[in-house]
Amino acid sequence: MVRAIEWVDAGADSHIRLIDQTLLPASETFLEISSVEQLIEAIQSLAVRGAPALGAAGGYGVALALLEGARHEWTETELDTAIDAVALARPTAVNLAWGARRVAAVRAEGFDRVLAEAHAIATEDERANRELSRLGADWLLERVGHRPLRAVTHCNTGALATTAWGTAYGILHELHDRGMLELVYVDETRPLLQGTRLTSWELHHDGIPHLVEVDGAAASTILRGLVDFAVIGADRITADGDTANKVGSVALALACARRGIPFVVAAPYSTIDVATATGDLIEIEERGDHEVLNFGGLPVATPGVRAFNPAFDVTPHDLISAIVTERGVVEPAATEQPLFAPDVAVADH
Amino acid sequence: MVRAIEWVDAGADSHIRLIDQTLLPASETFLEISSVEQLIEAIQSLAVRGAPALGAAGGYGVALALLEGARHEWTETELDTAIDAVALARPTAVNLAWGARRVAAVRAEGFDRVLAEAHAIATEDERANRELSRLGADWLLERVGHRPLRAVTHCNTGALATTAWGTAYGILHELHDRGMLELVYVDETRPLLQGTRLTSWELHHDGIPHLVEVDGAAASTILRGLVDFAVIGADRITADGDTANKVGSVALALACARRGIPFVVAAPYSTIDVATATGDLIEIEERGDHEVLNFGGLPVATPGVRAFNPAFDVTPHDLISAIVTERGVVEPAATEQPLFAPDVAVADH
Repeated sequence: MVRAIEWVDAGADSHIRLIDQTLLPASETFLEISSVEQLIEAIQSLAVRGAPALGAAGGYGVALALLEGARHEWTETELDTAIDAVALARPTAVNLAWGARRVAAVRAEGFDRVLAEAHAIATEDERANRELSRLGADWLLERVGHRPLRAVTHCNTGALATTAWGTAYGILHELHDRGMLELVYVDETRPLLQGTRLTSWELHHDGIPHLVEVDGAAASTILRGLVDFAVIGADRITADGDTANKVGSVALALACARRGIPFVVAAPYSTIDVATATGDLIEIEERGDHEVLNFGGLPVATPGVRAFNPAFDVTPHDLISAIVTERGVVEPAATEQPLFAPDVAVADH
Repeated sequence: MVRAIEWVDAGADSHIRLIDQTLLPASETFLEISSVEQLIEAIQSLAVRGAPALGAAGGYGVALALLEGARHEWTETELDTAIDAVALARPTAVNLAWGARRVAAVRAEGFDRVLAEAHAIATEDERANRELSRLGADWLLERVGHRPLRAVTHCNTGALATTAWGTAYGILHELHDRGMLELVYVDETRPLLQGTRLTSWELHHDGIPHLVEVDGAAASTILRGLVDFAVIGADRITADGDTANKVGSVALALACARRGIPFVVAAPYSTIDVATATGDLIEIEERGDHEVLNFGGLPVATPGVRAFNPAFDVTPHDLISAIVTERGVVEPAATEQPLFAPDVAVADH
């Protein structure tokens, strides 16, 4: 199984290894990242992306900052600045900041402790993904029926988006392993085509039947009854269950609500941002024009034309049938608010 | 103003001239079409597209078939077959068949009469577009408020999609001419990017402020309150008001319904297919994989991966605030069914 992010142990030359996801599937190129600046560039260019993978990137980024700081004799303030820069490299991705903060909290205990904490994020992520996949598959089969299901998904939530196994993708993989997955419709996920390039690549390697469709087709695929449910990942889930995910997600939710089929969000519990009450408060990252106005490196619009390029959208909780984490399944559309609070445990499924 | 389709008078060498829309905006290349086979290829490759332009293509196609038939001494049956092939070159586009049938009906009266009938389609289309644009702008300003409005649109419905002026685009143009248009969000319209390539090209030339967005952004642009209404064209409108249009349209309708803003369909009355009761009966054209899986001529998916590529989706009438034709405005979401019948006139606005 490919790893989106790994720590390479090499003494003073230890560093982060990333598969450059901007080049997949045409080329399997690995980036050897040995500075905070390189890491931030990789995060912002989406060489590494996906909420859980960014959690690990945040954690390993702190380890990297410690090594770089030691090489360059950074002050504590300079080190703080570097860690903050990693944590805030993408504003909507709560996991990135979460991973960086968690690991930074133990830095007084030394580098080995810091690296161990970063490794723990990766290990826990894989365990969480396998658990939430089991819970999500159980919930879907109980809700929809014990038969091979047809699904639609958006963006990439597989091994490439996480440290291993995947979230929404993990549920599909789990259903496939149980013989309960007939077909997956994969949204291509413009502008960067994570669906066509990454999810389809993973599904192909895992032997899971699928068809790629343009994002605009998703709503009608749902309304025409071609699928039994939709499942997506999450970049941030607020206390009331509102979910920020790759732009295009909310159209699936609107269509599922009209068709009366489940719309499922799958994410590790660390994606839940209990400090933010509701989706209206989420800052939506806007990215550059060039992602929209160029195709395969060539301009497709008339010179001078501008683009609007929000990276995420927010699905209101009342459109979400289930949020599946490793701690259990909650049903936002049918639950009183707020859904999540720091001291409220989610009931196990 | 550019013409999507024109008849070139040159005696026995008379033919159809099309601007090849697959090459815009990079290249303004004209196709000189002198056989039915070439015309069908141009229609199927989308060198000419847009429901009203296809109406004219159907009409001029009959004239072309008469000339070609005369050259090759076709039997009546061969001529019938050629006309049928033009009429059915794209199954969802009702205007194409309508244009071909209308002109074929006068073929006993000779070539000059046939050509005059084809020209009449083009002339009537421009007149209808200007009238429906006036009616649509009136309706929107009355409904939303007399102030500069912000709009979102999908695909291309301008001069390139029609014989002149445009339908949904015509309403935007009319609002702009009245000083009542602030900004247009243009969906790029995958897979063939008619929004980025064609609508944006027309808006740029007409000096209308706009931003291009990926199709997946449209629903959240609406839900976030960034626009006051959505307006699209139509490839077919059934008797109950259900509307087939470029895939991706229905997501805008779902979002407008949730946000409580108008979702407007603009089309010449000839787009209404009173013989088809409801949208469920519309055959949805599926196009080739390559449109989805290649970008700028280069493959983006893993070899062996397949695509699902429906060209259209159907927006149910209860999600449509207004259908604007040159005969007036009807409000499907607020009207008893059936909306349209052969002998029922639409009330003038």
